Amino acid sequence: MKKIPVIIDCDPGHDDMMALVLAYGSQKLDIRAVTTVAGNNTIDNTTRNALNVLHYIGADHIPVAKGLQDPIVRSHKEVMEKLAENRRRMYPDQGSQEPKEKIVGASAHGITGLDGFTFPQDNPMQVQPMSAVEMMAKVLRESEEKVTLIPMGPLTNIGLLIRAFPDLVEKIERISMMGGTSEFVLTRPFMEFNTFVDPEATKIVFESGVPITMFGYDVTYRVLCGKDTIEQMEHLGNKTGHMAASLLKFFMERHNKNLSHLGLSDTTPIHDACAVAGVIDPTLVTQSKRLHLDVEIGGTYFDGATICDYAHCLNLPENVEVVYNMDTQRFLQMLVDAAANCQ
Amino acid sequence: MKKIPVIIDCDPGHDDMMALVLAYGSQKLDIRAVTTVAGNNTIDNTTRNALNVLHYIGADHIPVAKGLQDPIVRSHKEVMEKLAENRRRMYPDQGSQEPKEKIVGASAHGITGLDGFTFPQDNPMQVQPMSAVEMMAKVLRESEEKVTLIPMGPLTNIGLLIRAFPDLVEKIERISMMGGTSEFVLTRPFMEFNTFVDPEATKIVFESGVPITMFGYDVTYRVLCGKDTIEQMEHLGNKTGHMAASLLKFFMERHNKNLSHLGLSDTTPIHDACAVAGVIDPTLVTQSKRLHLDVEIGGTYFDGATICDYAHCLNLPENVEVVYNMDTQRFLQMLVDAAANCQ
Amino acid sequence: MKKIPVIIDCDPGHDDMMALVLAYGSQKLDIRAVTTVAGNNTIDNTTRNALNVLHYIGADHIPVAKGLQDPIVRSHKEVMEKLAENRRRMYPDQGSQEPKEKIVGASAHGITGLDGFTFPQDNPMQVQPMSAVEMMAKVLRESEEKVTLIPMGPLTNIGLLIRAFPDLVEKIERISMMGGTSEFVLTRPFMEFNTFVDPEATKIVFESGVPITMFGYDVTYRVLCGKDTIEQMEHLGNKTGHMAASLLKFFMERHNKNLSHLGLSDTTPIHDACAVAGVIDPTLVTQSKRLHLDVEIGGTYFDGATICDYAHCLNLPENVEVVYNMDTQRFLQMLVDAAANCQ
Amino acid sequence: MKKIPVIIDCDPGHDDMMALVLAYGSQKLDIRAVTTVAGNNTIDNTTRNALNVLHYIGADHIPVAKGLQDPIVRSHKEVMEKLAENRRRMYPDQGSQEPKEKIVGASAHGITGLDGFTFPQDNPMQVQPMSAVEMMAKVLRESEEKVTLIPMGPLTNIGLLIRAFPDLVEKIERISMMGGTSEFVLTRPFMEFNTFVDPEATKIVFESGVPITMFGYDVTYRVLCGKDTIEQMEHLGNKTGHMAASLLKFFMERHNKNLSHLGLSDTTPIHDACAVAGVIDPTLVTQSKRLHLDVEIGGTYFDGATICDYAHCLNLPENVEVVYNMDTQRFLQMLVDAAANCQ
Repeated sequence: MKKIPVIIDCDPGHDDMMALVLAYGSQKLDIRAVTTVAGNNTIDNTTRNALNVLHYIGADHIPVAKGLQDPIVRSHKEVMEKLAENRRRMYPDQGSQEPKEKIVGASAHGITGLDGFTFPQDNPMQVQPMSAVEMMAKVLRESEEKVTLIPMGPLTNIGLLIRAFPDLVEKIERISMMGGTSEFVLTRPFMEFNTFVDPEATKIVFESGVPITMFGYDVTYRVLCGKDTIEQMEHLGNKTGHMAASLLKFFMERHNKNLSHLGLSDTTPIHDACAVAGVIDPTLVTQSKRLHLDVEIGGTYFDGATICDYAHCLNLPENVEVVYNMDTQRFLQMLVDAAANCQ
Repeated sequence: MKKIPVIIDCDPGHDDMMALVLAYGSQKLDIRAVTTVAGNNTIDNTTRNALNVLHYIGADHIPVAKGLQDPIVRSHKEVMEKLAENRRRMYPDQGSQEPKEKIVGASAHGITGLDGFTFPQDNPMQVQPMSAVEMMAKVLRESEEKVTLIPMGPLTNIGLLIRAFPDLVEKIERISMMGGTSEFVLTRPFMEFNTFVDPEATKIVFESGVPITMFGYDVTYRVLCGKDTIEQMEHLGNKTGHMAASLLKFFMERHNKNLSHLGLSDTTPIHDACAVAGVIDPTLVTQSKRLHLDVEIGGTYFDGATICDYAHCLNLPENVEVVYNMDTQRFLQMLVDAAANCQ
Repeated sequence: MKKIPVIIDCDPGHDDMMALVLAYGSQKLDIRAVTTVAGNNTIDNTTRNALNVLHYIGADHIPVAKGLQDPIVRSHKEVMEKLAENRRRMYPDQGSQEPKEKIVGASAHGITGLDGFTFPQDNPMQVQPMSAVEMMAKVLRESEEKVTLIPMGPLTNIGLLIRAFPDLVEKIERISMMGGTSEFVLTRPFMEFNTFVDPEATKIVFESGVPITMFGYDVTYRVLCGKDTIEQMEHLGNKTGHMAASLLKFFMERHNKNLSHLGLSDTTPIHDACAVAGVIDPTLVTQSKRLHLDVEIGGTYFDGATICDYAHCLNLPENVEVVYNMDTQRFLQMLVDAAANCQ
Repeated sequence: MKKIPVIIDCDPGHDDMMALVLAYGSQKLDIRAVTTVAGNNTIDNTTRNALNVLHYIGADHIPVAKGLQDPIVRSHKEVMEKLAENRRRMYPDQGSQEPKEKIVGASAHGITGLDGFTFPQDNPMQVQPMSAVEMMAKVLRESEEKVTLIPMGPLTNIGLLIRAFPDLVEKIERISMMGGTSEFVLTRPFMEFNTFVDPEATKIVFESGVPITMFGYDVTYRVLCGKDTIEQMEHLGNKTGHMAASLLKFFMERHNKNLSHLGLSDTTPIHDACAVAGVIDPTLVTQSKRLHLDVEIGGTYFDGATICDYAHCLNLPENVEVVYNMDTQRFLQMLVDAAANCQ
């Protein structure tokens, strides 16, 4: 069967790791490039983590290109300070337990952005001598077929690609993104991370006319991974299974302890893998809805919030397929199978 | 039994009419003053409508003071243009069916703000020679007990009262307000009317420290009035019953035809009466929750949206009792009984 | 000659002190009330300072009413943090020299808001049992003639008065305000203090239709007081002269040392006294221009900036007389003479 | 002498035309590419105009690449509506004299964006098969030396280039831009056109670290072209001189009639040519200052305004050389000489 050509744009991250394992191990995707973006951690760390994961699972041949530290308009520093302020408000007493470095995703992902497993230091993989956006443009231009983009971090690279290479937009088959939320935005502080970090990029993507499938917090907090799945990974007996199990164990502990407000117990979301799974097998999606989506820019509380026009108030095209639920068992089995297929 | 001292701040409006009938006819409230605010219609029209209703039901002795056309910071004109633009977006094809005058609440309340019944023209009642805010301050200062405020329109007058007379804030027993919403804000274009019109006043009220009970769209669209209640009003045989039935019939038709996106059929909300009913008999409230609420100021979509901190992200005091449901049957019976008690 | 009826709204402050001395000592004004506002310092401190100055100069009979700590919409805390951040940016190395308490005007006015002179502690004067806004409304309502308002701090009280008592607006003869600037706003960080603190109140005042004369930074930094004037005060030999000289000496030192970026040498502005002087003798104004003014609300750099429509771009009424220059010698002589007339 | 390698980014436009004539005819610049952007007119029209001018003056060999209709974040439509609203406010009575099509620069440049001369219809030049941003990136990457960018329209393309190709930023020698203003922003409605259209792009450029020389309204409205210069062009006797004279005559008439609020009489600015002249011969600049500049994003009046930190309030690096004056005679002579050197 013909593989589906994709570009994966990520900021690893534990769930990004699992997404990469799934994408590569599934043997259903033709991963033309992996590009990186800052988000869960700095661009240097997310890029190093991406190279480490790809090398460790045996996907050395996939070209990796490094993206940007800053969102399109805002500065990373400014966005992180806003996030840190939110956190201080939420946990005024726990401030001292935070790592001293102001790292965004540290409470979930640790200081390196991928704590919980030590990768070998002699990774021979190098980033390509071109930017993430340029890499994406190159892949799209050289491809005879349309290519699916799978962004899992802030949409900075995708937004820039769409604006800087308008003639290549028609070469994008679909954007299967992890990000956004269609539920009331204050159930978490304060909204989904990726759209919060780069609202302007999100706006460009939503208005691009490209078909979009959105795996937001709505679905990623429903499709949870438990201890048994992690044990299955461990028992695979291969390198990838061990690495994945170690990292998921760390991720679950962080979710159950540091992020106790989420109310998760012995389970963890694996956000980014959902967006990959939906490309590999769209029948995994058990509930979804086509809606018009936009993103709020400005204001105190809702800056970066995804707007879902449930009531058709805006009278604008339904530009996003919002995914609400997936077949959790098949999804988790797919993860284990993919890890088994790696080295 | 001792009557509960209240001030009613309204912008009649059909549901305000019913709220006034309920407040007066219930015989449980000591209505110290009725003050007016622009909202559903201009300040001149809402004030005239308030005088007409009070006179018609025999409540001539209640002093009425006129409030402001403009919200505290914004201009009425600017707010109305924003609303009209929202509506044009929603109903691009129905633009020609709108009344030519740009009247905010015209689709629900008609051009006069209280279409559907012709009041006698020889109303002897006059507004007091002082502003709404001054009237409120006078009542509060002269009262030995604390007084409950029942605002049913934009919170302009209450916000100004709190800022201009800080020493009188302690004389306010509670604010039982109709306004705001704690559900996802885009289910209606774009959010609850009263907080949308004067977000700055809403902010002042929410931050005032006064106990607040909020009857927002969450409850007022659940507690619906049907044809049988209107018929009961009509069959009361008194002036008030006839007037109320005529106006509610008009209001229901408007909701079922002009506001068809609400999906109501042979029913109508009576928003403002909920806030009065909750003061008369708090046991009517069957579901509610204490939360921290704030209001968004700024941005494109959420300017004026009520923020409900369900997840305790803001770590701030629970300043509002948000009402989700009421005993509809008892509520409607209370309305009919009150109409029966009037002339 | 008939005295001009005025209400002075102030946040003393050294220049407010001089403004009060001028207003009282000039014998040309009928000071119906002094009201206070937070600004240079907290509302408690500015109110105590106002009482101290009035008692010390023998003006015990003037009623004083206390205003608000917070601007109409924003919180004092939020505004002060924004100011402190501006200052940190300007003087990153001098942070340690700042008083530890985060007091806004401390660099100019000291920690008490009126450092440099010790007032007796047995001041019998008390604030009136009503708010600043209520006091103003009372004076306006009871006055047969129109009354001139002289605000010298953030326009919070005046804005609230205009909105809460719309029927009294016609009783205001003129607003002679210290505040705003019509020069390029980034010559100081970042603009005039009073409009910065309460832009919403400024908007209400500018749009009120009341005639306004604005003594902004344009004129108050041109009309400078030197050492000779301070010496003249000292040599008057009376209590007021000594107090005024002590305080002006402190104020000048602060301007020449702590505020060295202003480039002043052995001189000091006496901002607030300008707005009083212009009421006492309008011929002191040697250069002014009628313009349409508005205030910016929102944005990063210009939030609170006064907008002067020099080019008549907005096609709106000329609502403000902007003063550019005054006869400095006559102004300073007027100050000395007024101090001489006090006890 | 070695030619200076440049890329010209323009939205012709009469002054852009003159800038292209100057760049090509001066024989001092190696024009590696001309890229286009929407601004004075739609992207289709500005691109066609650029091709027409280049072909007519004999510069067919210069590659032209087409840019974007929309700014990076905002939509062209939204920006133009804001401009049109400003204009309606300014000239409420002249609304009917405006061309019916809502074309931004129509009052200065006519409906085609380059009214006043009829170019031959058989232009064989074609745009390159790549976007403006990609073209710029290609030139920078292939160049051994650093290249100077000369943007004359909204900074959309340059902003995207900097973000999408961060590794190429070091290949930019300098940005010599027409745009912005360092004078008080309300002397024109409401500020310089190019920064107003794309503030977010301007922010990216200002923060890029690339050396910038800014030819804003400050200088372009000082360096005016009179009738004698136009006559000299006409008398050159060549194609270019005739074309340039015809177009400048049209431009001058529009400035003296349609834009009468500028107070120009028998003169016209040639904005964009200034930014080219400064690259050809920096000694033409007679007055300039290095300052920290930023751009305001948000607010009602100042959205898109350039911020010049004259008072060093922001304590940030001096990132822009702001040009205040140029040697007008030498500048105009340079224009005539360049036209003479073309065909």
